[in-house]
Amino acid sequence: MARIGIADTTFARVNMADFAIEVIKKNSKHEIERYTVPGFKDLPVACLRLFEDYNCDIVMAFGMAGAAQIDRQCAHEASTALQNVELKVKKHIIEVFVHMTESEDDKEIFEIAKNRAEKHALNTLELLKDKTALTPYAGQGRRQGKEHEGPVKL
Amino acid sequence: MARIGIADTTFARVNMADFAIEVIKKNSKHEIERYTVPGFKDLPVACLRLFEDYNCDIVMAFGMAGAAQIDRQCAHEASTALQNVELKVKKHIIEVFVHMTESEDDKEIFEIAKNRAEKHALNTLELLKDKTALTPYAGQGRRQGKEHEGPVKL
Amino acid sequence: MARIGIADTTFARVNMADFAIEVIKKNSKHEIERYTVPGFKDLPVACLRLFEDYNCDIVMAFGMAGAAQIDRQCAHEASTALQNVELKVKKHIIEVFVHMTESEDDKEIFEIAKNRAEKHALNTLELLKDKTALTPYAGQGRRQGKEHEGPVKL
Amino acid sequence: MARIGIADTTFARVNMADFAIEVIKKNSKHEIERYTVPGFKDLPVACLRLFEDYNCDIVMAFGMAGAAQIDRQCAHEASTALQNVELKVKKHIIEVFVHMTESEDDKEIFEIAKNRAEKHALNTLELLKDKTALTPYAGQGRRQGKEHEGPVKL
Amino acid sequence: MARIGIADTTFARVNMADFAIEVIKKNSKHEIERYTVPGFKDLPVACLRLFEDYNCDIVMAFGMAGAAQIDRQCAHEASTALQNVELKVKKHIIEVFVHMTESEDDKEIFEIAKNRAEKHALNTLELLKDKTALTPYAGQGRRQGKEHEGPVKL
Repeated sequence: MARIGIADTTFARVNMADFAIEVIKKNSKHEIERYTVPGFKDLPVACLRLFEDYNCDIVMAFGMAGAAQIDRQCAHEASTALQNVELKVKKHIIEVFVHMTESEDDKEIFEIAKNRAEKHALNTLELLKDKTALTPYAGQGRRQGKEHEGPVKL
Repeated sequence: MARIGIADTTFARVNMADFAIEVIKKNSKHEIERYTVPGFKDLPVACLRLFEDYNCDIVMAFGMAGAAQIDRQCAHEASTALQNVELKVKKHIIEVFVHMTESEDDKEIFEIAKNRAEKHALNTLELLKDKTALTPYAGQGRRQGKEHEGPVKL
Repeated sequence: MARIGIADTTFARVNMADFAIEVIKKNSKHEIERYTVPGFKDLPVACLRLFEDYNCDIVMAFGMAGAAQIDRQCAHEASTALQNVELKVKKHIIEVFVHMTESEDDKEIFEIAKNRAEKHALNTLELLKDKTALTPYAGQGRRQGKEHEGPVKL
Repeated sequence: MARIGIADTTFARVNMADFAIEVIKKNSKHEIERYTVPGFKDLPVACLRLFEDYNCDIVMAFGMAGAAQIDRQCAHEASTALQNVELKVKKHIIEVFVHMTESEDDKEIFEIAKNRAEKHALNTLELLKDKTALTPYAGQGRRQGKEHEGPVKL
Repeated sequence: MARIGIADTTFARVNMADFAIEVIKKNSKHEIERYTVPGFKDLPVACLRLFEDYNCDIVMAFGMAGAAQIDRQCAHEASTALQNVELKVKKHIIEVFVHMTESEDDKEIFEIAKNRAEKHALNTLELLKDKTALTPYAGQGRRQGKEHEGPVKL
């Protein structure tokens, strides 16, 4: 049994963490530690604490980025720092970010967020198994938040 | 009782720190340490000193970015370094940045700055309590500097 | 005999790793360790593990980036972190990334991916030999994924 | 008495360091260590040496960026590394950069460079005193290189 | 006598290293260590090895960037990592990068590359002498790859 960290924000407009937690509970007996921060720039240090202070083996980080250029830049800063955390603790952070530019329709944003959270919860469970657990799907054009694209057709 | 660092700049055109300090004093008995620098690129090392030399438990960093592309780039450099400080000390820095592009009206910039400083002061107090103090608001579309957007409506 | 790490993704639409592995097996007796992750942002920590936990001497990292601006940004974050891993372990990661913007034709994307994977597998074998193994080709305009451009013609 | 590092470049088209040194000598008895490099990307390691090998307490880094996009990118790389140096030694580097895009008139570029160098020399002296030496000017819209903008008018 | 590292790529279309080595040999008795890699993203770890495993005192890093936006991004990633290497070892890396956007004429690209390599070889020799060896040229608008611009004319 492993411990899965769940870091999310009050800024996001969809409670993605709840969808992921449901999938994790349904498919495993892993323990869950949650940490909620104001915005995605507060996620990296939350993730670091989940790893070092709460002994998590892997963390899912949920965030939602607005449509303005400055939002994209902030997402970039958050993602860069999340990478730094991963390298510091040598463990995976599955970044589940939704960009408001992905759709202009609220309902569709909700569906993207839910689908991405659920599929990445399953990816998280696979990564906890073995480094080749996902190898059967290598290069298969898998997507989270929308339909799989599949491999290039020749 | 905790110690809250307040790092701000002479470049900003609104004294945001004063608004935040007022909120902190009204809602807690935490101690406050202030550090003022010329511009936001001087904030990261000021924050690091507030953590390591002045024993702060959390820091609020206030900055204001001009409207030119180079200003956005400088904000990016400052934000990246603030993330590095957070990971170095494993503590939160609540970044309270206002971009002059957010409004062309001086009065509105003032209101955004005041609102953001005050709401983030409250977020700071919550983060000092517990990692799930903000969880009831997870995915609720909370905003600082303007009205809350609320969760996606289906 | 050395150990070559192969890190790849389920997001990519071409199984580039298989092409590289074939070249490596045909031209050497090096051992191979594979690690498959969801997307290229998960590659850096996979590479770090391949070096530190699986004793690899060099790693090839395969990824494919979508055509949207956000995909380019994500590739940038992954590449920056891959550089950090290289400097941390002082070993080469040969980054084999294909951008969907390189061609609008699926068949051509496939050819680029295959060609890049195979040529970089050969580069990987050269780098394992000596720091001057590639010096005879210095400044010769060598390309992976397409024809060599050759040196500037005067 | 402190030791102030002065790092500058042969690329810049104005000898900004001389203006700053004059201000420092006129207003203090601090010692000065100078280090001249080809371009601003050579400044970060020069600053690190000024701190660690020449015992400087603070460093002023002078650079000038050309008008092309690639120049802006190089300035970004230099600034990012300067931030890293600051966090490494926990001391301030006052970055005095002039962008050729700030004016198309050579005379005006000269005035901006001189004014920025002189005002930042004074900021440097303040930062050496105390973390609240500049607090009376917090949020006052102070500028270097041009007139102070002052606080937002309501 | 010092040891100068020379890191270059097979991607570049001009053998810049050869021009630099000629200048170094003509003007000094320093030893030279060469390391050739596929592309400029492979340069940072090569430079780190030249410093730590081959005892170089300074390194010249030669690269050539294509004209597409993705090439500029890759150059940015390489440059950022080169800065990290410099700060890690506290020694200079003289970055000699040519961008294919600097000219559409092959012959001119060749001239820029040769001129930049030769002038930076001389800068390298100066930096090995003393931190003020270049101070007489501070703010003098020196250029590599083209004519010196000279100081701003008033």
